[in-house]
Amino acid sequence: MKRYVVYLCWLLPFAGFAQQGIDQDALYIREIHHQALVQGEAWQQLTVLSEQIGGRLAGSEQSEKAISHCANYLKSLGVDTVYLQPCEVPRWERGEPEIVEIAVMGSTESIPLHALALGNSIGTGPAGLSAEVVEVKTLDEVDSLGDKVRGKIVFFNERMDDGTLNTFNAYGKAAGSRVWGASRAARHGAVGVLVRSLTTRIDDVPHTGTLVYEAEIPRIPALAISTMDAEKLSLLLKTRKVKALMRSNCQILEPVISHNVIAEIKGSQFPEEIILVGGHLDSWDVGGGAHDDGAGCVHAMEVMRLIKAMNYRPLRSIRCVLFMNEENGTGGAKAYQAASYAAGEYHLGAIESDRGGFTPRGFTVEGHESVLQDKFKRLSTWLPLLEPYGLGFRLGGSGADISGLKNQKGLLIGFEPDTQRYFDYHHTAIDRIDAVNERELELGAAAMMSLVYLLDKYGLE
Amino acid sequence: MKRYVVYLCWLLPFAGFAQQGIDQDALYIREIHHQALVQGEAWQQLTVLSEQIGGRLAGSEQSEKAISHCANYLKSLGVDTVYLQPCEVPRWERGEPEIVEIAVMGSTESIPLHALALGNSIGTGPAGLSAEVVEVKTLDEVDSLGDKVRGKIVFFNERMDDGTLNTFNAYGKAAGSRVWGASRAARHGAVGVLVRSLTTRIDDVPHTGTLVYEAEIPRIPALAISTMDAEKLSLLLKTRKVKALMRSNCQILEPVISHNVIAEIKGSQFPEEIILVGGHLDSWDVGGGAHDDGAGCVHAMEVMRLIKAMNYRPLRSIRCVLFMNEENGTGGAKAYQAASYAAGEYHLGAIESDRGGFTPRGFTVEGHESVLQDKFKRLSTWLPLLEPYGLGFRLGGSGADISGLKNQKGLLIGFEPDTQRYFDYHHTAIDRIDAVNERELELGAAAMMSLVYLLDKYGLE
Repeated sequence: MKRYVVYLCWLLPFAGFAQQGIDQDALYIREIHHQALVQGEAWQQLTVLSEQIGGRLAGSEQSEKAISHCANYLKSLGVDTVYLQPCEVPRWERGEPEIVEIAVMGSTESIPLHALALGNSIGTGPAGLSAEVVEVKTLDEVDSLGDKVRGKIVFFNERMDDGTLNTFNAYGKAAGSRVWGASRAARHGAVGVLVRSLTTRIDDVPHTGTLVYEAEIPRIPALAISTMDAEKLSLLLKTRKVKALMRSNCQILEPVISHNVIAEIKGSQFPEEIILVGGHLDSWDVGGGAHDDGAGCVHAMEVMRLIKAMNYRPLRSIRCVLFMNEENGTGGAKAYQAASYAAGEYHLGAIESDRGGFTPRGFTVEGHESVLQDKFKRLSTWLPLLEPYGLGFRLGGSGADISGLKNQKGLLIGFEPDTQRYFDYHHTAIDRIDAVNERELELGAAAMMSLVYLLDKYGLE
Repeated sequence: MKRYVVYLCWLLPFAGFAQQGIDQDALYIREIHHQALVQGEAWQQLTVLSEQIGGRLAGSEQSEKAISHCANYLKSLGVDTVYLQPCEVPRWERGEPEIVEIAVMGSTESIPLHALALGNSIGTGPAGLSAEVVEVKTLDEVDSLGDKVRGKIVFFNERMDDGTLNTFNAYGKAAGSRVWGASRAARHGAVGVLVRSLTTRIDDVPHTGTLVYEAEIPRIPALAISTMDAEKLSLLLKTRKVKALMRSNCQILEPVISHNVIAEIKGSQFPEEIILVGGHLDSWDVGGGAHDDGAGCVHAMEVMRLIKAMNYRPLRSIRCVLFMNEENGTGGAKAYQAASYAAGEYHLGAIESDRGGFTPRGFTVEGHESVLQDKFKRLSTWLPLLEPYGLGFRLGGSGADISGLKNQKGLLIGFEPDTQRYFDYHHTAIDRIDAVNERELELGAAAMMSLVYLLDKYGLE
């Protein structure tokens, strides 16, 4: 890299300092991308997380293996410190594979559906439960049915809108029935819940994800069924009464202590200004958690590798945080934030990657209202350096693990890749390494490193 | 759609006309995207081309089926005219699957390689040919070896650079040995050529593609081998002498007459100003030609469907052209251009989609130097309408089938999707429908229709 910089100075002896700075930055960002594409280790690391270790639900044996693997890998890079930060996480286990079967009332012929218990759901127990199915589209529709769902299984058939450009927006709009459906149905006496999987595809792949039980409301079991099965069930219900058998063997156990993995390279000039890169190390138990969020973890680790491999000496402290338990409790984020505020830390910028390992499109940015506009303007001055890589900035949410750092008055930034394929794989058994493209993954790390470089070199004042 | 426009006018009664126009355009482009995502037929059409019909090499039975299918589909949309335009195309047949085996000299143990004859290559005949292998990286390296390759098989091991951001640039730099390698080696007496497949991946998938034999130089057989096999062979050659057996059964037959498929909707105000959307209907014989270029054809056909489905009445003539024989001769493009110039036509804008069915990033634009700058500036005024969809414009090549229209002094435009995955599939047996994401494909059609809408409504003056 030095070679390039020297060469440039020689070529442009009469250029002003500012121009020279910009050109040096452009060359450095090009070199970051080249390094990530040619020498990158993101793909190998993701293969370890997704295929050798596999699904990494918080508190599971696999999650502990992932913690240990990543801590060792980060140490091997020669960063200044690597440590584990304790956090309490809930323990939930799926147990034996779940079963959902439907049958037209009066018929003995049953149709098996592709199903996955929702995370944090209670199980039905080995006997299962059987009841008539009532279809609704939304949470409000359950309320309007009221007592009519008593003793029934409520089937939330809320479609994720395939007409929305940004799939995360469509997901956000449709996720309510998965998160709150069980308690909403239970308020009116329902005994179980089936939820249409959250994807725009029509296929046989069920998508799990967390539910939240409201306090004081009876807890009833909830399972997701595939979109194809949701279509089938809905079609049957148009003309017939249908009953379902649900059997799930999940258990909620006592919380345990797990850990965030933290690695740091100390800044030479402003060590108290922290630039965080992170993802969450836990995933759902099915599949390999490749896009969600193995990709984010290897993006963050690759930033640390690039810093060391390129012999970059940061002015500010660069901290890689692999959060535990984002999927069903954010225990890791809570512990991290508590410790950070207690220590009076200042995160100048925190970047979370939790939207998969697809081709980078840019970053979404949030922050305390007293600083957001000014600091966002500062970011925007770097656009000429980032646009050649298809990267931009827009205001928007950052990430579940870092959004709580807002009161430190730095910028909270979400890495934003292309969103079109994410919900094909999200929370499924097919979120595996073969759903990830190596170059796209590597470019994500390069995008994050490029922003880290600019934040570190120029700050946000 | 009308509903939206009326609604908007009601909401903004005091807005100036210009602003109102922009807002109407924004709503219309949003509706185009919504229609393509929700009601789109691109995916079904691509499934027919790629899976029901399959590889569509010019002159083949499959290519004729594709012509007939697409003409019928376009007629079913209710466009004004659909017709077939004759063109002469070369006939090349792969014949029985090819074989490449390598063995260390003196050993009887042979290693089979994953290979595909290059398009337009002669075959070795059933006996095959066997000779010592000489590795080179580039065309120039063959020249410097000169007589040393006489009687040998030249192995072009030119890597496609994985450090280049835009994979098409890396492809362009490395494709010379595939296109010109056979004749360059034959000049110095070589008897056969093996070429490293053009992809940044290291895998077992061989990539075919066309070669060009120079006049007056003996024609020798040429085959592509997979990148993994190229690595193996190169490793062996570092320490050992290696011979190879090549056997291919391809044949060059007499040219035949095939056809471009053309559909048109006549403009109501400026019918003599043509806006072309197109792709090429032929593909290589292996695989399904899904990304290359089934995607481009269904993009173009979907534009016609959207125009009719949205009841859009174009001011200018919109013409969909599915070109034949882009892969190994551009016979279709030549016939189209000859007819177009002879008729004194003016293509205000021609948009070709031939870079796969991935998430759209924008358009590359070229044109006659006397008009390019002005017309490009005109395009740029539409950026505020297109940037929300991640679309931009840059100067660059348009497409092999339309670039010859430059002297008509309109703009020649290449649809540009994300390039990261294209060369994983290009010219291979795995370029099938499962390599295409439905939403990404649909967004490509929406991007093209959005630009057609603006070109049609505002022209380029």
